[in-house]
Parts: sequence; structure tokens; C-alpha cells
Amino acid sequence: MRAVDIITKKRDGGELTREEIDFFIDGFTRGDIPDYQASAWAMAVVLRGMTANETFDLTQAMIASGETLDLGQFARIPVDKHSTGGVGDKTTLVIQPIVAAAGVPLGKMSGRGLGFTGGTLDKMESIPGYHVDLPLKSFLSQLREIGLVLAGQTARLTPADGKLYALRDVTGTVASVPLIVSSVMSKKIAGGAKGLVLDVKVGSGAFMHSVREAARLARLMVDIGRKAGMQVVALISDMNQPLGNAVGNAIELREALDTLHGAGPEDFREHCLIIAAHLLQVGGAASSQSSARQLAQDMLESGKALGKFRQLVRAQGGDERCVADPDRLPTASIRKVITSPRQGYLAQVNAREVGLAAVTLGAGRSKKDEPVDHAVGIVVHHKVGDRLKKGEPLFTVHANDEVKAELAEEQVLHAHAFSRSIVEPLPLFYRTIRS
Amino acid sequence: MRAVDIITKKRDGGELTREEIDFFIDGFTRGDIPDYQASAWAMAVVLRGMTANETFDLTQAMIASGETLDLGQFARIPVDKHSTGGVGDKTTLVIQPIVAAAGVPLGKMSGRGLGFTGGTLDKMESIPGYHVDLPLKSFLSQLREIGLVLAGQTARLTPADGKLYALRDVTGTVASVPLIVSSVMSKKIAGGAKGLVLDVKVGSGAFMHSVREAARLARLMVDIGRKAGMQVVALISDMNQPLGNAVGNAIELREALDTLHGAGPEDFREHCLIIAAHLLQVGGAASSQSSARQLAQDMLESGKALGKFRQLVRAQGGDERCVADPDRLPTASIRKVITSPRQGYLAQVNAREVGLAAVTLGAGRSKKDEPVDHAVGIVVHHKVGDRLKKGEPLFTVHANDEVKAELAEEQVLHAHAFSRSIVEPLPLFYRTIRS
Repeated sequence: MRAVDIITKKRDGGELTREEIDFFIDGFTRGDIPDYQASAWAMAVVLRGMTANETFDLTQAMIASGETLDLGQFARIPVDKHSTGGVGDKTTLVIQPIVAAAGVPLGKMSGRGLGFTGGTLDKMESIPGYHVDLPLKSFLSQLREIGLVLAGQTARLTPADGKLYALRDVTGTVASVPLIVSSVMSKKIAGGAKGLVLDVKVGSGAFMHSVREAARLARLMVDIGRKAGMQVVALISDMNQPLGNAVGNAIELREALDTLHGAGPEDFREHCLIIAAHLLQVGGAASSQSSARQLAQDMLESGKALGKFRQLVRAQGGDERCVADPDRLPTASIRKVITSPRQGYLAQVNAREVGLAAVTLGAGRSKKDEPVDHAVGIVVHHKVGDRLKKGEPLFTVHANDEVKAELAEEQVLHAHAFSRSIVEPLPLFYRTIRS
Repeated sequence: MRAVDIITKKRDGGELTREEIDFFIDGFTRGDIPDYQASAWAMAVVLRGMTANETFDLTQAMIASGETLDLGQFARIPVDKHSTGGVGDKTTLVIQPIVAAAGVPLGKMSGRGLGFTGGTLDKMESIPGYHVDLPLKSFLSQLREIGLVLAGQTARLTPADGKLYALRDVTGTVASVPLIVSSVMSKKIAGGAKGLVLDVKVGSGAFMHSVREAARLARLMVDIGRKAGMQVVALISDMNQPLGNAVGNAIELREALDTLHGAGPEDFREHCLIIAAHLLQVGGAASSQSSARQLAQDMLESGKALGKFRQLVRAQGGDERCVADPDRLPTASIRKVITSPRQGYLAQVNAREVGLAAVTLGAGRSKKDEPVDHAVGIVVHHKVGDRLKKGEPLFTVHANDEVKAELAEEQVLHAHAFSRSIVEPLPLFYRTIRS
């Protein structure tokens, strides 16, 4: 078998066999197949696609490239969640403590932000001292002790994915359904999850722009999970406007803390409760969605979820005083409230534009490994469908640089659109897809 | 400007600007843009294509990556020829001496065989002692002294092309019209040619399978040459059956020598005279195609072309006794004549199959840098349209291995197809395209 023949077959639109995929991924992981062949292959996959069988085989090959975890000692049905990424998506920060507080352990390996979407690790690092690089041994012991971990990926699981992702990032080969699906699912399966809840975003601030596309992606992930012996629920959720109000790092963390304290934006709170309820049901802590929902709500309202979050911060070296006193989190030197330029119904708060404005301010990265400014970001004060008066607060810019503040102000103002007639609010979720 | 953005633009089907192409090729040549980005870009080019403008800009960027030759001191209109490659295509060995004998200098940098098509350098290396690696200085002094050189590419011209071609070869990105065109044309333009004759093959034994495709390729090359100040004539020629009779290295050289001695297969001789005449006309040695044709024929019939070939062999260290006595060339230990299994009209002598059989025997390479066996090959004794009796010689296998001989015999037999009714001979040329 030769790598160039496998590349050529995919270039010409052929379906690769399991043996060919195994040969390619194994060779790439060992370094026998060089990066320049892997990147040409990845580009052929982006432009020619892969069948469901190929995507499953690719997922399995990624899993086989490294260690796999057996979490059977921690939970009857170990669970995990994954979001395809969005703007203002700080849900893990609330969902994970709810689920862990209800007795379902959830150890999560998460990622950093890139482009207009934020990353959970960056948000957590707003807490002084919080560290995300845990050896696998510490990850497992913390999971046993307190039932939750929120850390970075370890290179011991799916090393092929880590290597391939780094290459895709610099070769224009990120945007591919089979490559995205196999990357996500291989990590989740290798990580030992038996129950998985997927939050598949759709809209201007997501990779998928139509519910149809998102549903196809979700269906593929659900099927691959099922074939690997997993129970998977995928929720197609709206990402046309930011989730909640805050878009940034410390300001999103603050919004998550508000929610854990019993307040927080209504849409964000509701989103978290629904996902948490699915996790509790998949994890075997509740037999119906309504009892799971009640359990999740109890964890939030009783302060038990907040307590779990405090344990998490403490376990990973963060300053836990921030939990009770969010004013200890980094704050920006400039805080500017922009008011509504007209009256009417809010027709659009373009998530992508708001996300890009946050990058302008320094909250996100346009290139990998860039540092982020944890303090800066945008807080939008209204949702699509809201009726506004001229002059009332529309959004707040948190900045550390006057020029960037002005650029971001313009971008976010441009992200808002108004209508004279009534506008329906956007739904939180569009569809649920199960295995 | 970032390489990844240029890759992404091409991936999405965009037209690259001249600045983007210059940036990419220049960065790649210097090593600032790594191979893995270049191969992903090449795959995007293969699958998305390039416009004529992009192809021209790519050609120019390749030229700018190295030195360029000014051959004005050698000839008023320095000429060159290029064949897109075929089976039994030993035309350079006859055309070049004809043209040089008529006073039009022709220094040629040629290539090796890969896959089912043979390479001119391999054929010349059948002559003991003949060397093809000439420093540029020797190339130029030999061109001045005797008016012809037949050597390998130098890395000093179009280094970007050399580097990119090596990468394309192992990443499944060879089969792309813009990449092929820019590779050929950049070398010809950088090499100082002002007049160029292209022999664009079409048929089973060529990269192009329809006259329409071949004409499009030819038109693109002619236009790029004209834009670069060159006079270009492209001939679309048949490659459904081997050109001449011999397919191999020494046996093709022997056929070329036969032709230079005044004999040789009729189709091959005619093909060479027509291309040579175009070169003489483009090079200013004749004012019309008919006078150019007469001049070419004179060079062949007078033995002047043969004399030039002898000078070439001597200048590059080859054993010139082979020119008068071809029995000194390497010969195969096994020589097996296969007879016609039936009577009828020959309907097909599939060039690709015959070429692959020659590779089976060891005359060609399935991988780069493999050695070749100069002695082996196939001699077909008939052309499409010939009327055959059962039992008359159909082809001869020249082999150095019994098993390979049997395999090749089967392949070549399979390449022949018969018909009960009259079959028209194949034309030599289909169309001529000029700038």
C-alpha cells in the first residue's frame, strides 16, 4: 500500500477502505507518512467528502492511534458533552457543575478559542491561578474525588487527531464535515464516554448555517457514536445571536457565576438546564426528561451547582474567592455603553459580527497560540424580538484600548438590525436527534 | 499575506491574484512556506482549477524563482520543442539532429520516464558513456560549438518548478492542466526559447484522452507563450497506438538510428519531418512549411542529421561507434516473436497497455529514481488498419526475465484488437494551433 495511491483515490472521489484509512492514519501518527502527504489528503477529503463508513473508519483509526480511558470505576454511564462552538457559549461552566452536583461525574477535556468563537479554557483562565494542563493521572484522581474536571486535551488520547488538527489549521482543511466529526467523536469515544450530549450550533455565529446542514452533521455524529456503543443525543441550537449577553472571557465567566448564583440571562439559563437535563437522563440519574429537568433546576437553585464549581476552581489551583466575589476577576479599563440609535424591534444581533468584535478587542485569537486579553469583550443588552426605545442601552464595550474600542463599537452597532414591525424571538433549539 | 488564506481562497474556488501567486511561489522556493502547505494548495488547484490568468501568473512566478537564459548569442530565434509524453515517442532523437544540421541550434533539457510513458534521457543513456548531467556552462558551450545538446534539467532554472514537481509526484497532484502548463512553459521560457513547437499527444497512451481536451491544453500553452513574447505552434498528435514500432530504451534508440540512416518506420519518420519543419520555420530557417519540409528531408537524406547526432553523442561522452553499429547497444537475452492469433484488420494497438508492458519488462519506472533496464521492450510490427494473416509476426518481446516476458506477452496481446471489416488507419495529427 502506498500513501500516494490513497491520496489519488480520494482525489478522484473514491471511497477509501478501512485498511487504507488505517494504513494512512497509522503511518501519519508514526511519522512514516509525512505532513505534506497528509495535508494533500486532507484537502482531497475537504473537496471530495467522505461516506459515513469512511468517517466511522477514520474515527476508529484516530482512537487506535493512542490510549483509551475506561471510566467504569467512576460512573455506571460516564457522560460527556460537546458544543460545536459559538459566540457567548459559556454553557459548560454552568452545565458541568449542575451535572456533577447531581452525582453524575463529568470530566471534560476542552479547547481554546479560535476565530470568532470563544473557548472554554480561555474563559476558565480568567480566574487567577486556574491551570488547565493536567497530567492524565491527576485528571482521573480529581474526577474520582470531586466528580468534575475542566482541563485541556492530553496528547495520550487520539494523538493522530492532535497532529492532524495542527496541520489542518494551517492548510485550510478545517472546514470538512467528516474531518470535524471524526475529530470530535474520536476524542469522546477514546475519553471513555458512554453517554454523550451534542450541542450542534446553527446560524451566523456557527460553522453550520442551515438547520438542514446541522441536522446532517448531528445525524452523522449520532450514528458514529451508536456504532461505537454510545448513547448520543444531539440538540440543534440557535447561534444567530450570542447565547446569553456576554461575549468575552472574564465577562462570560461572570455571567456563568451570576447564573450559578440563581440569576443570569433567561435564554442562557434555560439552555443550560435543557442540556444538563439530557446529560442527567443519558447518565442514568433520571428516568424522564421532566424529572431530569427538575433535578437540574434543584441543583442550580439549591446552590449545590455553585458549590461544585467552587470545588472545581479550588482543585485546579484557581483563586476561589472569585466565585463569591466576581469583582476579583480581571476588568477592562474602558467601559462604554452604546445606546440604541432608533426605536423599534430588534431584528438581528449578528453573532458572527459580535464574535469578530470581541476578537478585535483582544478577547479571541486570529492565529493559534496568540495570547488573549481576559478582561475585554462585549455585553449585548437585548435579544432579537425585544422592543427598544431610542437612547436606551444597546450594548457595552469592555476594552483596554481606545482605538480597538471604537472599531468594536462600530462592528457591534452594525451587527444590530431593527424593524418597525413585530419580530418573533429566535428559538433556543430547533431539533433533537437521538441514537 | 498568509499562506493559509491563499490555500483557503483556492479551496473555495477563488481566483488568486498575481500578488498572491508570487507570494506563495516565492515563499515556497525560499522554504518559508513549508511543503505541507504547498501540497494542500496543489490539491486545491487540482480539484478547483485555475483561470488562464492565474496559470500565466504561476508560470511567471516559476520563471522568477531562478535564472533565465538569453540565447540571443546562439541564434536569431532560439527554438525548443516539447512533447507531452507518450509511448514510443523517440522523436527528439531524430528531430533535434535534423534541425541542428539545418543551422538552427537546439539545446534541449529533457526528462526521464515515469509510468507508462518513456523518457528521452533514459533512451539516450542506452549509449554506453553518454551522460546527461551537464553544468549550465558546458550546456551553453556545447550549444555554441555543435548546435545541439540533449541533457537533464538544471536546478538553476525554475527551481520552484523542480521543488513543486517533486512534491506533486508524491501527493497525487500531477494531473492538473494549470500545473502541467505552468511547469512546461516556465522551463521553456526561462530556457531562452523564442520559438516553440509543442507536440500535444492525445489518446489511450497520453494524459489527454480527447482532441477537445488536448486542444484546450494546447491553446492555453500557446496563449501563455505568446503573452511571454514567444512564437508557439502546437500540434495535436495521435497517441492511441505507439509511435513507430519500438517501445523501450535501446530499441527505440535503434529505431531512431535506423531513421537517421534513411530507413525506419514510415509513421515515425513522417511525424519527425513535420515537427522538424515547424521548428525550422519558427526558427527562421525557412519561410514556408513546404520549403521547411524540404529542408528537413534534405538533412535526413543527406546524412547530415546523422552526422549531427554523432557529434552529440561524442560531445556528451557516449560511445559513438554505436551510431554506425547499433548492435553495440545493450540487447536483451530473450527475444520472442508473437504471431497473430487470427486474421483480420488491426483495430487497436492500445498504447497505454503496450507502455505498461514495457514497464513490466523493466524498461520504465513505476516509482521515481528506480533504475531501468535499457535492453528490454516491445516492438510492435503493425499499425491500426493493417490487414493481417493468422500466424504472421504481430510483435516481439525483448526481455531479460522469463516470467516478465510472459506477463508482457499477455499484456501486449491483449492490447491488440482485430476486426473483420476494413479499419481506417489512425491519423498522425489532428489539429494545429498557432499563436
